[in-house]
Amino acid sequence: MIDKTVGIVETNYFNINEEITLESGETLSDITVAYETYGRLSRNKDNAILVLHALTGDAHAAGYHKETDIKPGWWNDMIGPGKAFDTDKYFVISSNSLGGCKGTTGPSSINPKTGKPYGIDFPVITMEDIVTVQKKLVDYLGVKKLLCVAGGSMGGMQAQQWAISYPDFVQSVILIATTSKLSAQGIAFNAVGRNAIISDSNWNNGDYYDKEKKPDHGLSIARMVGHITYLCEEAMHKKFGRKLQNKQKPDFTMDIDFQVESYLQHQGEIFVDRFDANSYLYITKAVDYFDLSEKYGSLQEAFKNTSAKFLVISFTSDWLFPTSQSKEIVNALMHNNKDVSFCEIDSPCGHDAFLLEYKTQTNIIKSFLKDLNNEGTLS
Amino acid sequence: MIDKTVGIVETNYFNINEEITLESGETLSDITVAYETYGRLSRNKDNAILVLHALTGDAHAAGYHKETDIKPGWWNDMIGPGKAFDTDKYFVISSNSLGGCKGTTGPSSINPKTGKPYGIDFPVITMEDIVTVQKKLVDYLGVKKLLCVAGGSMGGMQAQQWAISYPDFVQSVILIATTSKLSAQGIAFNAVGRNAIISDSNWNNGDYYDKEKKPDHGLSIARMVGHITYLCEEAMHKKFGRKLQNKQKPDFTMDIDFQVESYLQHQGEIFVDRFDANSYLYITKAVDYFDLSEKYGSLQEAFKNTSAKFLVISFTSDWLFPTSQSKEIVNALMHNNKDVSFCEIDSPCGHDAFLLEYKTQTNIIKSFLKDLNNEGTLS
Repeated sequence: MIDKTVGIVETNYFNINEEITLESGETLSDITVAYETYGRLSRNKDNAILVLHALTGDAHAAGYHKETDIKPGWWNDMIGPGKAFDTDKYFVISSNSLGGCKGTTGPSSINPKTGKPYGIDFPVITMEDIVTVQKKLVDYLGVKKLLCVAGGSMGGMQAQQWAISYPDFVQSVILIATTSKLSAQGIAFNAVGRNAIISDSNWNNGDYYDKEKKPDHGLSIARMVGHITYLCEEAMHKKFGRKLQNKQKPDFTMDIDFQVESYLQHQGEIFVDRFDANSYLYITKAVDYFDLSEKYGSLQEAFKNTSAKFLVISFTSDWLFPTSQSKEIVNALMHNNKDVSFCEIDSPCGHDAFLLEYKTQTNIIKSFLKDLNNEGTLS
Repeated sequence: MIDKTVGIVETNYFNINEEITLESGETLSDITVAYETYGRLSRNKDNAILVLHALTGDAHAAGYHKETDIKPGWWNDMIGPGKAFDTDKYFVISSNSLGGCKGTTGPSSINPKTGKPYGIDFPVITMEDIVTVQKKLVDYLGVKKLLCVAGGSMGGMQAQQWAISYPDFVQSVILIATTSKLSAQGIAFNAVGRNAIISDSNWNNGDYYDKEKKPDHGLSIARMVGHITYLCEEAMHKKFGRKLQNKQKPDFTMDIDFQVESYLQHQGEIFVDRFDANSYLYITKAVDYFDLSEKYGSLQEAFKNTSAKFLVISFTSDWLFPTSQSKEIVNALMHNNKDVSFCEIDSPCGHDAFLLEYKTQTNIIKSFLKDLNNEGTLS
């Protein structure tokens, strides 16, 4: 067994045996949810923590699927024995988002009405819809109340929606590197990504699952654009600067000259092997739509009926969801006299810091969770 | 005649009757340069100002080509009677960059060796090559010494190269919203744009000039990415916020929902009518290669032999070429005891401010040029 991780885990699948009505008014049935759990649910069923992934994540948040895996789950630094989300104390649940392509129903799933993949017949979904599906899973797992809902980036959007949609079910919320609404610039970057996919001739109006060629070029471009927004100029400078790729001097051709070009292109190329172009369209659209102020009249009004204790974390170099956007959430909570802690972590890692800066986050989150006084009821 | 402009102007063409050796060692012959001039060269031939355009600009910097034109030249706010570059006093020269597609030789020009467009047989060019060609034009126009070389963004890169390559020929230099080397993030954005073009199936390895379909999708995506970097988050927020495009509520489809999406897509679509995809590849590559520190050992060493007086202008909200990068230039000049003035203009317009914030720039530039004492020798 591998040290200091939850060890070998497997993804499980849960089928929702009812029709779900989405925010758009459309319905979805035969929904499957891919999920993993780490640790044990306490006798009182009060030690469950739901962790929520970002744009292109999946249910595999911690541990390894097999002994030979090189990479563990996406938040392995934060979830495990003795870690921020301590699996010796807590029952951690991670599920793949609705609309994704890693086991939970999405545009690449079979549409029961046609027997073929949905493609763009899949209904447009929202963060609230994603949360609705997560609630079904958590109920199925026997959890009576979530000790905590925690998420970074898009996961933080869902965590806010949890606190609002199920105020009596959520004892605490941890929001990391997130926002209460996507900015115009954020929409713009997503729009470029979607345009790149849609204008790829292999996209074929979303109907490419049985075709030899898929919209890999478009999806790759979308990933490259996104990836730039996850790093910051400082991080890119430190990581690559103007270093050349396998050469001493520019070779005056149209080939790749700089390491940063090679890195980005590689990120695009490996992404297409693990992600579905239509899922990218649907999930970025859900992110674009997310706007709590618009939905509830104001951000203060949005949080009015929440009863959770909040921890909000931002990072100095995150320019995708900058600290100012975290402070808007904190201010709205404070105006409602809610219990909220805020911490801006000094980091050069940009938006990706929520995945990388685990040491500082661990201290802050451990302390926050300890104060909730729900430890020690395992046995 | 249209008020307060240089009026109706026309683009002229100059043919360089010699072979040019490029920085790469390759040669180019039969080079044509598209250019415009405004105002009159003085008897002493000492009132000439060379203005240099940015990435996708052209020779048409001021005035109108015909009475019915809706849009004037790209720096019409800055060039004209009584303006920053006062055509009652100065002889203003504007030329299209080598490698472009607006009249000066570039990849869409006919390769004299084959009788067909160069495509990607066009040699890779640098800022120094672009400046070499500009010098031929300025000599041809009879100018003995340039009173000033002024440029924003990529134009500012060339202006620096002018001061370094022709120290005795340049009396002053105005650098606006520019840098002495492109950052890793800048290279990254350019790399995404080039990838979008190259992965467009209609790019056809650069050989598309006689084809019905051109790599419009790729070029459009490249422009959309670029455009985001020219604005700043604040500018985008003020201009668009999260306002919907021609609808009251999101319509839960994959269509465009937000104004910022519509705007960006429009920018991409109109760009393909005025720009050549191969030119975009070559010119962004020249921008990527630009690095005075690397080329001359250090930035201080680069400016060591310059004799021009410098004015450096940056804008608070420019995150593509931020103030810190202008300050690097200023510091290198000061360490060489050069005459340099620096001004950071408070502006919400992002990188595009060099095209938009003409009032403040006019005051600063007028004052700077007046101090050069080369006015009043027109007659």
